[in-house]
Amino acid sequence: MQIGKVVGSIVSTQKDESLVGKKLMIVKIINSDEQESDREEVAVDTVGAGIGEYVLLTRGSAARNIFPNGVNAIDASIVGIIDSFEK
Amino acid sequence: MQIGKVVGSIVSTQKDESLVGKKLMIVKIINSDEQESDREEVAVDTVGAGIGEYVLLTRGSAARNIFPNGVNAIDASIVGIIDSFEK
Amino acid sequence: MQIGKVVGSIVSTQKDESLVGKKLMIVKIINSDEQESDREEVAVDTVGAGIGEYVLLTRGSAARNIFPNGVNAIDASIVGIIDSFEK
Amino acid sequence: MQIGKVVGSIVSTQKDESLVGKKLMIVKIINSDEQESDREEVAVDTVGAGIGEYVLLTRGSAARNIFPNGVNAIDASIVGIIDSFEK
Amino acid sequence: MQIGKVVGSIVSTQKDESLVGKKLMIVKIINSDEQESDREEVAVDTVGAGIGEYVLLTRGSAARNIFPNGVNAIDASIVGIIDSFEK
Repeated sequence: MQIGKVVGSIVSTQKDESLVGKKLMIVKIINSDEQESDREEVAVDTVGAGIGEYVLLTRGSAARNIFPNGVNAIDASIVGIIDSFEK
Repeated sequence: MQIGKVVGSIVSTQKDESLVGKKLMIVKIINSDEQESDREEVAVDTVGAGIGEYVLLTRGSAARNIFPNGVNAIDASIVGIIDSFEK
Repeated sequence: MQIGKVVGSIVSTQKDESLVGKKLMIVKIINSDEQESDREEVAVDTVGAGIGEYVLLTRGSAARNIFPNGVNAIDASIVGIIDSFEK
Repeated sequence: MQIGKVVGSIVSTQKDESLVGKKLMIVKIINSDEQESDREEVAVDTVGAGIGEYVLLTRGSAARNIFPNGVNAIDASIVGIIDSFEK
Repeated sequence: MQIGKVVGSIVSTQKDESLVGKKLMIVKIINSDEQESDREEVAVDTVGAGIGEYVLLTRGSAARNIFPNGVNAIDASIVGIIDSFEK
């Protein structure tokens, strides 16, 4: 997983049926020093994350096999809200 | 998923039979500030995307398991047309 | 796999149920000359790794299929503690 | 998929049995402006690609599940010869 | 697959049981001009590769499904020894 910061969301009317009703958030990859990279992912939110929150981002088949029917177009999901880093 | 911009298409006569009849689009990865990266993907279009449109690009097994028979050569698909970003 | 150094941990209350009870460590990717990259992963610890230790990091479906029920949100795991490099 | 240019081939006597009899080509990743990146993949040729040709490169499980028995060591395959780009 | 050069090995006592008895080699990614990148992988050796040899490195599920029981922690394997490049 990677540490991300939610910076926005996507509005998409025409999309794969497996994405209908899902919240698509724009997540910027950051590190544990809160430095932003220039990499973004569009991830399905599964935990009610809001703009500005730090989240756990998972990718690949892990991102879609947490949904009841794994046959979907998802390759990135928000799977946790980060309360704090301990270093 | 990543945000992409459709910049062209590919003509290929000799190809894996699973790609026959599929539209192969050239997608440039961008971010939500509409800055282009230097990364391109050739993706199968599933939503009728046109040149210049902003799209959702999915990769890996997600890109091919949305097709009826998952036994194919696809590792990248366009799965949504982006209407707008909310930030 | 990649060589990593454990640099911290993540506290997350609200998360996918498959992550409940798992130790989520922040791992910085390093090379065999012990030079740090700027890449970090949040990985599930399976071997009792502590802060500062050098570890083996596995990613993708390998990271989650080592758990009894492969239906989970995990895409990175610590699967070994490195005693030494031989070069 | 990515756009590649075939720049050579690999001779390997001692290899996983799933690679025996397969043509292993060296493919340099390029973009649709024909600029070369510094990234190379060794890919199994499935379409009779020759040195200097532009090809479609697929990676990951897509690259190996197009073979009759998916239990093999392949993570990159050439799955099309590119006739032209339309931009 | 990528071209790699074996530069060392890893000693790890405490590790996932699926890695017990496996040779874990440090592989530096190179290109066909024998230029080294700064990327390393720790890969399971399946072909008896020695330090200094050029090898074929496969990653992802391909790296682990070549083992009798695919339920293991492996995401990178050495699957061939390179005799020569033809360019």
